[in-house]
This record gives sequence, C-alpha cells and structure tokens, in this order.
Amino acid sequence: MANEGVYYSDYLQLDKILSAQQLESDKEGHQHAHDEMLFIVIHQSYELWFKQVLYEVGSVIDILSQPNIQDNSPDLFIANHRLKRVVTIMQVLIDKINILETMTPLDFLDFRNMLRPASGFQSIQFKLLEAYLGLKMDHRFGKEYYVSQLKPADVEIIKKAEDKKPLIALVNDWLERMPFFDKKEFWPGVDMNEPVHPFWKTYDSIYSESLVQGEKFNLSRFEEIMLAAEKKPEWSLSPKARRSALFIMMYRDYPLLQLPFQLITVLLEIDEHLATWRYRHMNMVHRMIGSRTGTGGSTGKQYLKGALDSHYIFGEFAELTSFMIERHRLPVLSSALRMRLGFES
Amino acid sequence: MANEGVYYSDYLQLDKILSAQQLESDKEGHQHAHDEMLFIVIHQSYELWFKQVLYEVGSVIDILSQPNIQDNSPDLFIANHRLKRVVTIMQVLIDKINILETMTPLDFLDFRNMLRPASGFQSIQFKLLEAYLGLKMDHRFGKEYYVSQLKPADVEIIKKAEDKKPLIALVNDWLERMPFFDKKEFWPGVDMNEPVHPFWKTYDSIYSESLVQGEKFNLSRFEEIMLAAEKKPEWSLSPKARRSALFIMMYRDYPLLQLPFQLITVLLEIDEHLATWRYRHMNMVHRMIGSRTGTGGSTGKQYLKGALDSHYIFGEFAELTSFMIERHRLPVLSSALRMRLGFES
Amino acid sequence: MANEGVYYSDYLQLDKILSAQQLESDKEGHQHAHDEMLFIVIHQSYELWFKQVLYEVGSVIDILSQPNIQDNSPDLFIANHRLKRVVTIMQVLIDKINILETMTPLDFLDFRNMLRPASGFQSIQFKLLEAYLGLKMDHRFGKEYYVSQLKPADVEIIKKAEDKKPLIALVNDWLERMPFFDKKEFWPGVDMNEPVHPFWKTYDSIYSESLVQGEKFNLSRFEEIMLAAEKKPEWSLSPKARRSALFIMMYRDYPLLQLPFQLITVLLEIDEHLATWRYRHMNMVHRMIGSRTGTGGSTGKQYLKGALDSHYIFGEFAELTSFMIERHRLPVLSSALRMRLGFES
Amino acid sequence: MANEGVYYSDYLQLDKILSAQQLESDKEGHQHAHDEMLFIVIHQSYELWFKQVLYEVGSVIDILSQPNIQDNSPDLFIANHRLKRVVTIMQVLIDKINILETMTPLDFLDFRNMLRPASGFQSIQFKLLEAYLGLKMDHRFGKEYYVSQLKPADVEIIKKAEDKKPLIALVNDWLERMPFFDKKEFWPGVDMNEPVHPFWKTYDSIYSESLVQGEKFNLSRFEEIMLAAEKKPEWSLSPKARRSALFIMMYRDYPLLQLPFQLITVLLEIDEHLATWRYRHMNMVHRMIGSRTGTGGSTGKQYLKGALDSHYIFGEFAELTSFMIERHRLPVLSSALRMRLGFES
Repeated sequence: MANEGVYYSDYLQLDKILSAQQLESDKEGHQHAHDEMLFIVIHQSYELWFKQVLYEVGSVIDILSQPNIQDNSPDLFIANHRLKRVVTIMQVLIDKINILETMTPLDFLDFRNMLRPASGFQSIQFKLLEAYLGLKMDHRFGKEYYVSQLKPADVEIIKKAEDKKPLIALVNDWLERMPFFDKKEFWPGVDMNEPVHPFWKTYDSIYSESLVQGEKFNLSRFEEIMLAAEKKPEWSLSPKARRSALFIMMYRDYPLLQLPFQLITVLLEIDEHLATWRYRHMNMVHRMIGSRTGTGGSTGKQYLKGALDSHYIFGEFAELTSFMIERHRLPVLSSALRMRLGFES
Repeated sequence: MANEGVYYSDYLQLDKILSAQQLESDKEGHQHAHDEMLFIVIHQSYELWFKQVLYEVGSVIDILSQPNIQDNSPDLFIANHRLKRVVTIMQVLIDKINILETMTPLDFLDFRNMLRPASGFQSIQFKLLEAYLGLKMDHRFGKEYYVSQLKPADVEIIKKAEDKKPLIALVNDWLERMPFFDKKEFWPGVDMNEPVHPFWKTYDSIYSESLVQGEKFNLSRFEEIMLAAEKKPEWSLSPKARRSALFIMMYRDYPLLQLPFQLITVLLEIDEHLATWRYRHMNMVHRMIGSRTGTGGSTGKQYLKGALDSHYIFGEFAELTSFMIERHRLPVLSSALRMRLGFES
Repeated sequence: MANEGVYYSDYLQLDKILSAQQLESDKEGHQHAHDEMLFIVIHQSYELWFKQVLYEVGSVIDILSQPNIQDNSPDLFIANHRLKRVVTIMQVLIDKINILETMTPLDFLDFRNMLRPASGFQSIQFKLLEAYLGLKMDHRFGKEYYVSQLKPADVEIIKKAEDKKPLIALVNDWLERMPFFDKKEFWPGVDMNEPVHPFWKTYDSIYSESLVQGEKFNLSRFEEIMLAAEKKPEWSLSPKARRSALFIMMYRDYPLLQLPFQLITVLLEIDEHLATWRYRHMNMVHRMIGSRTGTGGSTGKQYLKGALDSHYIFGEFAELTSFMIERHRLPVLSSALRMRLGFES
Repeated sequence: MANEGVYYSDYLQLDKILSAQQLESDKEGHQHAHDEMLFIVIHQSYELWFKQVLYEVGSVIDILSQPNIQDNSPDLFIANHRLKRVVTIMQVLIDKINILETMTPLDFLDFRNMLRPASGFQSIQFKLLEAYLGLKMDHRFGKEYYVSQLKPADVEIIKKAEDKKPLIALVNDWLERMPFFDKKEFWPGVDMNEPVHPFWKTYDSIYSESLVQGEKFNLSRFEEIMLAAEKKPEWSLSPKARRSALFIMMYRDYPLLQLPFQLITVLLEIDEHLATWRYRHMNMVHRMIGSRTGTGGSTGKQYLKGALDSHYIFGEFAELTSFMIERHRLPVLSSALRMRLGFES
C-alpha cells in the first residue's frame, strides 16, 4: 500500500485542530474563566460543520450549474442525497445548542466582556451559506449594521458569492428546463409553458371549488403567481417553474417525478431546520444576556428576531401547498403520458 | 403475592387504548385514507403525555400550596425532580413532530376536510397546562375566537382551573416567604424585604457601572421592577420575589441556594421548550396547509404565531438575567451569613 | 359539511384514552406511588406506537403480497415511504427511554412488587412486530420461557402471525421476481438467475483481488452464499435474491435502481433501530433493577441480552456489504442496459 | 475596552481549523472521493469534543484531588454541573453518528483503502478519557493489539495518565472521607466504618426478607461486597465507600445527600452514554464494512464488541441498585441525625 504511513492524528491534522483554543481569559491581566473553553470549542465545531455544509451545497450547485442535466444520469440522485445530508447535519447543529445551554448566564459573564466586539454575527461561513442558498444582501435584515460589523474583505467575499447563481435560482432553472418538460410531444395533455393550457384551466376550476369559506382569497393568489405569463423581479420562482413544481408535488407517485418530489421536499426541510436553528439560537441568546446588547453591539435578541422572520429562502415552495387539491379530484393523465412517467418495460 | 393475576394487557387496559382509533375516512361514504391512523395515534399519544404533564405539574402545585414549606423537607427536591421530568417529556413531544412531518400535505388532504370543525385548538389538556402554569384567559391570544371554538363545559373547566393559584403565583409566594428569608436575623447584611437596604444600593451601583453604551436603559428598568416597594397588578412577580430570585441566581453556589437555583432554571426550561414546541408546530402547520384555514376555521399559521409571541409564562424570570453582574464584582457576604448558607459541620 | 359535529375529544375518543390509567398502588391496602402513573402512561404510549408500526408494516406486507408488483406503479414508492416512517417512529421510541429514566430505582421499588408477574415481555404487539418482520418462534431466545409467560390465546395470535409470509420473505420474493429482472432480454450482459454467468465470474475475480490479508476468508463465504444454485433452509434470502440485492447496491445510481436501493437501506435502518432500542432498554432495566429478577420472573438483563444478540432480522442484507467492490472497478454495463435502467427520453 | 481588536475568525483561529482538511483522495495518483471531506470533518469534530470532555473531567479530577473537600464549598456543585455537561455532550456525540451514516458503504469504499493503517482506534484523546475515568491498560480488551497500533510516544501518554488517580478512585476516596461521614458523633445511629454496626445488621435483615424466589443469591453478594471489612484489589470501590453510596442512594431526599446523589447518578449516566456510543459505533462500522477488516487491520466489529462488553467503568455503582429496599421499609433515622442532614434554621 502506497501511503503506508497514514496515522490517525496526522491525517486529521490534530496538531492544528487541538492547538487552536486560546482563551482571552487566560491572557495577562485576566482571570481564567472555565467556561470560555466550551464557548470556543462549540463555535469551532459549528464552523467545521458550516464548512461541510458549504461543501455539500457547493457541490449541488456545481451539479445544477451544468448546461444540461440528464434525467438518466445519477446527478439528481446525488444532489438529493447530499441535501438530505445537510438536513441531518442541521439537526445535530440544532441539538448542539443544548450543550451551550449548560453554560449559565453567570458563567458567561466571567468572560463575555473580553470578547467585544467579536460576535457570532461575524461568521462568514454562515452568511455564505445563506448566499449560496439564495438570500440577497439587500434582503438581509439590518443591512447597514451588517456591513458595519464585518471586515471589508469579508463583505467582499459574501458579495462575490452573491454574484453567482444561488441554489434557488438553479432549481428554478431546472424546473423550467427539465428535459422531458421541454419536449411538448412528451407531455400529451399537459403543458408547463402555457398557463392558459386546458390542463391548468381545469386545475384552476377544481381548485376554486375546493376552497371553503375564508380561503377564497387564495384563488386570486393562485392566478396571480401560478398562471402569470411572466416572472416578477421580486419573485425567486417563475410561474412556469411553479407550475412544474406543483405538478411534481401532485403527481409525485409516478417514477419520473419521485426524485424531483424528494428534491423539493428537502429544500423545505432545509428552510425549516434553518428556522428552528435561528429560533432556538434566539431563545438561547435571550436567556443568556436578557436585554443586554450583544458583544458585537447589536440589540441581541431583537436583531435575531428580525432575521428569523425575514430570512426564509424557500418560502415560495412552501406556499405551493396552498394550491393543492385532493388526490381523487386530480385531473387524470392520459395513458400515453402515464407510460412516459414510468420505465419502459 | 396478592395480585398474582396482574397481566400486562389488563394492567394497561389495552382493550381501551387500542380500540380507540376510529377513522372518519372509514365511515360510510368515504374512502379509507391511510394516514388518518397516524393522525389519530399521534394526537392520542400527545394527549396521554399531556395527562402525565398535568399530573406532574399538579403535584408540584400541591407541594407548593402547603401553608409552609420546610426547607429541610424533601418537598423542593421532589418538586424540582418532577419539573425536570416535565422538561424531558417536552423534549420528546417536540421530537415527535418529526413523525407527523412524514405525512405529506397531499396525504393530509385525503381526510382533512372530514375533520372540520375539530382542531388541535380544542385540546383542553393543553389549555389546562397553560392555566396551571399561569396563563390567564384574558392574556390569551384571540380570546374571543378561543371561547367560540370550545364546548361551554370545556370553557368552564379552564376557567375553573384559572381560579386556583397557578404555579407562577406559588413560586412567587415561595420566593417571598422562604422561611430563612423571612428571618431578618438569619441574613446579616442582606434583606430581601427592603429595596433600600444597603445591600441593594451597593448592587444598584455596581450594576450601573457594568452597563456599556447602549445598555443604560436597563438601569431604570432595574430600579422600576426590582427596587419598587409594591407589585404592580400586571406583574406575575413582586419586586421582593424578584430580589430573592436574583440573589439566588447570583449566589447559587452556596448549598442552601443550589436547589432554589435549579428550580428557577427548570421553569425557564419549561418556557423555552413550550416555545420551541409552538414554533415547530407552527412551521409544521404552515408546511401542511400553507395559507389555507385550519380545520377549526382559524387562520392557521397566523393564529399560532400570535400565541407564540404572547404565551410566554416565565418571561419575568428570564428578564432577571439582564440585571446580573460579574461574579468577581459581587458584594461579598458576611462570614456569618456564608456559614448559614451551608450545612453545620 | 356533512360531519359538522366532529369535536376533537370525541374524534380521539379521549374518554377511553384518558380513563385507562388505574394504578395498582391506588388499590386498597397499598400506598399511592407517584411514579406509577408515568410507568403506565409510557407503556400505553409505546403500545399506541406499536399499533401504528404494525399498521404501517402490515400495509407494506399487503403491497408486497400482491401477485405482481408493477415497477411503474407507486407501490414501491409508498412501501418505502411507510418504512421510512417506521424508522422515524422508532427513533422517537428510543429517545422516549430518556423519560422512563427519570424514574429512579428507589421510586420504582415503591410499586414494582405490585405488578408481578406482569412484564413488558408480555407485549403481544411487539412480538407481532418481530413476527411481521420475519423472526420465527423457533429462533426466539429462551423459547420455552417465552411460551410460559403468555396466555395461551396470545401465543396463538403470534403463531398465527408467523403462518403468514413475513416482510423478509416477501422482499426475497420481490428481489427474485422483479419484473425487469425476470426478463432475460431486458438484461444484456447480466443475469441474476445464473451464478455462473460471465458477469458474476468477473465480479468474483475482481472481488477476490480486492481482499487484503486477513479478509481472504470472505471469498469462500461469497461463493457459498452468493453463487450457490440453491437456497439453504436456514437462510432468509436465496442466492438469487442476494445477487439482485448486491447488484442494486452497487449500481444504485441508475434511476431504475434508486428506489430498490432505498428500500434495502430502510430495512437495515429498521434492524439498527430495533437493536438500539433493545440495547438502551437493556441498560435501562439493568440500571433500574440491577441483578434482581424482572417482575415476570425472568433473569432481567440476561434475558434481554440474549434477545439482543439473536433477534436481528435483516442481517443477511447487512452481510452483503462485505462483498462490495470499489466503484471504479465495477464491471461496466452495456450501453443498451444502461439505457434501460433509465427513463426513455 | 482593552481588547478592542477581537474579531470572530481570529478569536476562533479559523485559519487553522478550516485549513486542516487535506483529503488523501486529492493527492496525486488518486481520484477525488467526495465523502472523504465528511469523514475528516466528523472525526475532527469528535476530537474537538473529546478535548472539551477531557477538559471538564480533568477539572473535576482536580477538584476531587484536593486534600479536603469542604461540603459547604461550591466544589461538589461545580463538579456535578460539569459532569452533567459531559453527559449532554455525549448525547450529541451519539446523535452525530446519524451524520456519518449518510455515507454509504459504496462511497466509503472510494477512499477507504487510502487510509490504511490509520484507524479511529488511534484516537489518543478517547483512550485518555477512558484512563481519566478509570479504565486500566490491563483491563483493556485486546491489550496487545492495542499497544501494537499506537506510536510508542502515544502509548506513553496513556500510561502516564494511568499513573494518576482516576475519577473512580477519587470518588471512592470522597465517599470514604466525606467530612461529615468521618465524624462519628455526627451520625447518631449510623456508621459507615463498621459493617457490623447495628444499622447495617438491620439493613441486612430487611434486605434478606425483601428478596423473592430466584433472587436469594443476591444476599451473599450483598454480604460479600458491602459488609466486608477490606477492599479486594480487583474492586474499584471499597466496602466502606459502597456503604456510603448505598446510604446516599436510599436517603437522598435529605438536603445534605441531594448533591451526592446527583453525583452518583451522573457517573452512571456517563457510563450508559459511553456504552450507547460504543454500541451505535459498532453497528455503524458493521453496516459500513460488514466482515471486512478495519483500516487498522483489526477484526472490525469483533474488536468493538469486545470493548463494548468489558469497558464499563462505573458498573460497581450500578450494582448497588440490586441492594435497595423499599422506602417504607427503610430504617428510620434518629431525629438528631435527620436535623443534621438538613440546614440549621
């Protein structure tokens, strides 16, 4: 074997990993604060995982950035698998807050002031992740404060990341150009390109009937965002992509649509996990510092609450749920199409 | 052995438990919806655990309702243990949402309309729990809607529960009357009864100095709610109880205060877990029905969001964190008092 | 709406669910043991979920028992989805042990003797689950003890369940008869029916080369169980089914094999979760009663340890991992076959 | 503020942390294996947390190594708090296995052979943790193999750690010398030093009566290990320490014993979590490599199984549960002693 010399601690570069904990409270003039080690280790652990998450999301972006994704290639299968891994990682990141909560506010006070003005807000990797997924600088809560807290070089890194197409835009493109969706002749009886196609007219009318009192406002919303001809600039998803997505969600049982359905689902799970992470993080900060300001000078909980409410990324997918109709009312697909949605046998 | 005949299934009355699943979609005129079974079982499981939580919280209320709690009795130890159990249960109730999320919106649609107007909103046990802890009818979000959705007999049950002193009021009383706190001679150098006592003046001044720019507003808040002579009607905690609680949180290392500190901590954990439960529940509902109305006719997510923001119960304890000072700046206690806070040796 | 009268507590039959907790320690001549309520509620909750798990596994058995499963039907997709749900439920059942562990051994002693000879061992639903999955009476650890502890009627229920084909046998059949696998002409260059087919000869030789010192014994095992012509009676899987499964695991990236791969994976996850559940249960019992006997008179931990080691059900799938070869050494499939493993475009 | 310059990424030394991932499969002559990044990151994350766990356990060892622990100092409170934190961390380490399980065996094969002979077995920190807690080199499963796999310098590090008193020995000492236990006059009616003291004679006789058929063997075990005058060399706990521990477990409701009870409990939780971690790790390895050998040349699962069964550290505490008697049968303590077990009022 060529690399006979591989040894565990060398392979993992543990000399670097395990020597990177330098407590501020151990510096001259301060008193050792026992819990600062935990504070450092948990943040380093978070950053390690952010690196992994960026690596996975980045690889999915690469897959979806290819000029043409073959539906018979393993591409989508792999993309889906990696995004599910991201969800699994996020679940652990959420649970990990339990560890930080073993630090009491009093113990945090022992070193909190020594950290100013550093703050978790300055995690570039987390901001990169938001950018990779699709959050724009202009939509960030407290944008000015945001820019003021980061080194200019770090602001540049994030801006540059925002220049590239984020995941949500690539998913929009994929929904629009899915090869089989582009071939009109593949789809007898359905057309994603035409909002006025009979299929969508039928759908519109069934949907309208399914709404109970107090939900009627959904119909105009459906027509506005699903049946429009053009994408509005503030939308992440085009009406065409939305129609594809809704079709996938409704007819997901057919083999061809199973994987696309899983992909849409995993995007929603990522958003939901990010939201839960933000929420638990906000509560933890509140419990730790109350109404004091964050070490970075932010308003602490108030800032986090702003981000919580406005940083959803895949909300436009979540909204599609409002437009579903019951399975037994679904327009029946032609047998020709049904065969195409399966394998040839 | 007297009860030689105990048999597992009889003991657990499994004939009742396992025969209580009657699907609406199995009734005449409907089509069997596979996932309705899950929907029923998970709600029954929640209700079983709500019963357990009410049983535990109710027993703690009984303990704290005794005219005089001996600090040397196991009472507080037991109360604390049972509230920690409640937190452990809540953690599982939160994780259990993962199970319900395996039901897709499309599968829910198969039977959702058959349930109207029933809704999880009608869970009397959950509302009793809120009442036991200290939420008043008048502070409930959407109070009118609330009353309209319940059978009058159920409204009565909750009102009646609100007539009794809830946990937070009993904790307030306990903080005020803790036997050792009531004996002035026990506490050389500290007095919880007197906001103008030298101890609190010193504390006030240290606290004032510890505030950085942008936190100064906390000082007037401190003086308003901590150093007031009287409790305002809208407060759950009296200034005196707050002073006791803050003292406990700051000097928690002394044996006498360790258990009281754990008790305050577990109350905060209950609030935090309830909040996480509400938040994940809200997100799950949003994912399941989007902007449709709930089966009970509520605005779905909007209602849940209102409850999320306004149903905190122990927030006044959380706020105390804002008033902490660093350990090394804490007023030193007299040696006479320090001995009293420990065991005699 | 037809069923206007649906009310939450009626729908869930909470009158039955919430009235089924009768403490032995509340009966005459005993003293109320606070924690017995927890003991009852957690076991009832487990039984509720066992009912749900049996419902899901039973429905998958029904699906796989159909004479012919169309690969283009949603059958496999649904089966897979439901088995994943079972895994999610099991995860919660495992975490729920945390709740029972809040009961200390001393508190358990307050009512433990009143339960004799009832024991969790008598959970018929759990034994049915094992039978549904594929555990045979004859392979159960401590078979005689087993039969002695149950009411004869309950033994009958389990025996009857074992008469039907369990999940593992149905999966074996499915692997053998997967429609496309049955058509020789579908598979240019591969044949699951023929262990001496060139494809398998090539595989055998690549596999042989991949084994490092100390693993060589795997080769004869490979030839014995994978390349045999006949299934031995003690095997759950036939060599033919094993070849299909291994092929699926190695070439899982192709669309046609993605879902089958997920299905095999979820079976392994079920086994792993069952094992973790048994292990944590065993440790919990050990902590609760030490070397005392169980209430049912069993040897407590010793019995559970026996079951832990011998009640694996899908171990023959796990073993297939030993026979994998590196992706880049895999025999390349013919382009004709590769096209068939995808969708027609 | 003095350290105005603190910046998040500098504070956490992210340049070191995030540059320490060098894939073997990215080296010349190999092909990039996507999942190797995950493999590196998860192991680095584990090592970060092992460092934290060692830091916490090490600090508890320092506390308990003091010549005399004051029962009125915060020492025990802090020790207990930090060991609970260790349990919380371990819970996350266990859940984190879910992340590694998203790597399929096929994906692992892409780089597995490049790692030989490195293996997780070479984690010095994990072995140090075992040594800190109390596992001796001589009791390690497969001792010879063990030594052969490590660099001599690493073997030295572990041996040196074993020279110091481990946690279990310090806990034994603490149980023996607890100040109040050393004062005979403090304990009217009980004596931990004298196994033939009337208290223990009474206990012995009550215990004997409480045993049901099939448990009688426990009585001689009780007398052998609890009532012996001397500690046997192979025991971790002396009979005297065991008597103290049993007394604490039985009379834990008294204020003086509440914290000692929590300490014993948390040791058992650490053992239980370590065991669960080992078990899930073993199953994960089995699923990943089947009956192949580990990269380090070990027998993989077989080695892990050996360690699983023999590396329990606090088993002698767990055994005490076998010797409990029901609360209502407990010898009643004198009122003089009962007062001493509380606070003076």
